[in-house]
Amino acid sequence: MRVGEALDKDGFAALASEGVPYVGLLDVRVEHFREGDVAVRLPYRELLLRPGGTICGPAIMALADIALYGIALSHVGRVPLAVTTDLTVHFLAKPHTGDLIGHARTLKAGKRLIIGECEVSAEIDGQLVAHVVGTYSVPPVQPG
Amino acid sequence: MRVGEALDKDGFAALASEGVPYVGLLDVRVEHFREGDVAVRLPYRELLLRPGGTICGPAIMALADIALYGIALSHVGRVPLAVTTDLTVHFLAKPHTGDLIGHARTLKAGKRLIIGECEVSAEIDGQLVAHVVGTYSVPPVQPG
Amino acid sequence: MRVGEALDKDGFAALASEGVPYVGLLDVRVEHFREGDVAVRLPYRELLLRPGGTICGPAIMALADIALYGIALSHVGRVPLAVTTDLTVHFLAKPHTGDLIGHARTLKAGKRLIIGECEVSAEIDGQLVAHVVGTYSVPPVQPG
Amino acid sequence: MRVGEALDKDGFAALASEGVPYVGLLDVRVEHFREGDVAVRLPYRELLLRPGGTICGPAIMALADIALYGIALSHVGRVPLAVTTDLTVHFLAKPHTGDLIGHARTLKAGKRLIIGECEVSAEIDGQLVAHVVGTYSVPPVQPG
Repeated sequence: MRVGEALDKDGFAALASEGVPYVGLLDVRVEHFREGDVAVRLPYRELLLRPGGTICGPAIMALADIALYGIALSHVGRVPLAVTTDLTVHFLAKPHTGDLIGHARTLKAGKRLIIGECEVSAEIDGQLVAHVVGTYSVPPVQPG
Repeated sequence: MRVGEALDKDGFAALASEGVPYVGLLDVRVEHFREGDVAVRLPYRELLLRPGGTICGPAIMALADIALYGIALSHVGRVPLAVTTDLTVHFLAKPHTGDLIGHARTLKAGKRLIIGECEVSAEIDGQLVAHVVGTYSVPPVQPG
Repeated sequence: MRVGEALDKDGFAALASEGVPYVGLLDVRVEHFREGDVAVRLPYRELLLRPGGTICGPAIMALADIALYGIALSHVGRVPLAVTTDLTVHFLAKPHTGDLIGHARTLKAGKRLIIGECEVSAEIDGQLVAHVVGTYSVPPVQPG
Repeated sequence: MRVGEALDKDGFAALASEGVPYVGLLDVRVEHFREGDVAVRLPYRELLLRPGGTICGPAIMALADIALYGIALSHVGRVPLAVTTDLTVHFLAKPHTGDLIGHARTLKAGKRLIIGECEVSAEIDGQLVAHVVGTYSVPPVQPG
């Protein structure tokens, strides 16, 4: 099903942080990147906190979007035109202090749509912070 | 149904940009703030762009979250503990160049849950960019 | 964008109630069927009630799915392979007694994905009962 | 966190099929019912099929709603007023022939909201058919 150049962890890490300054500020780290199994770390930084010292919702949603984009690219390779179609977030708990991990896996890898789910949890104790489902649309293959 | 101090446009604008630096970077402007009807502007800024010059998805989701939080506060007043419970985003089109407007309205204003929908559109031509539904949980009133 | 034979109200009504007995039991009526604007009525019947005399959630979801399927077909014509990809329902209130109306409109009519929203309301007083967003995938055109 | 009388598998099975004739027609069977872990079987029956011989979407959504309702009751006991607040379904594949299993687990068991996810799969080969996330609102405890 790959339609673009194969990607590895470093290749995906570069894609995930380049090109969009607002997302680059999150300073995420790719923990692992395998077909259908991607984990991304969001470092605990003052920039991301809201009153009370917990990481804000928009940063949590951005983390999940990155990890799920990784799931899509893990199947199709470097396809810059893969785009998010829908994202459903349920916030489960205020995160405990420390880094967050977004761990995504594939629900469906179709020719046109890739659907994944991502659990966001606090690294320190595995506390579940958010659950996210997302769909990514992959452009049709162009005959070469 | 109000449980906190009443809020006006300036009061909500302060709440929406204070306290969370990552969200403050969006530099949003409150266009109007009425009970059940809130509009928030996201200025077109290089920080928010992705390759191709369109505003990135995480900034669009953050804009909708702010406008929908405004809907919740427009009913209950200044209740800092109102929290997002779920958010469902459908991305409809890459935005045309320029500011985006997130326009939110109430679907349900219950005692415990407030549900709203937000249409995000390009200001320049009204092009619909994203549709978002969100639920906000309001803490129970504490007898004084 | 039409890829199948054009459909009118009666053609859609036949499609909506034939072929799937469990859905046919709902006995829905198509109120109107225009491009991007479809309304479907769910008659109040004992079969659909739960204790308390209100129409049950699964019947409300089925009604919205039918109306949103109508939106998809209103753009592409008679394409039996159009399938629901995702459906997000927020239940807003227990319906007042009487028929329900599912009123759907287009959010995006793309070549591959059609996204719509549907408001379900009680006919008797317009009370909003549920809000639904759905995505439908349209199979690629086969060259003739 | 229990607020109602404790429920076992048979008690939940009775609740799941009584009272709502349209849902009773599904003839579901509770496979297991433990706190935070509920499985429900949907028998393959002609009533539920659409052309092509696969179980229709509305029956799949109803199955998931039942299993997730079971998750809510597994935490709070027999609380007839627990209601579905939101349900997000992603359809992943047309089911293979045979019974479907809806397997649900807890994402969050809060005092007011219980959030669960449900995977619907074909029993014959475990094929993943749909992924569902749902929120259930639990009414406040009344002081006795």
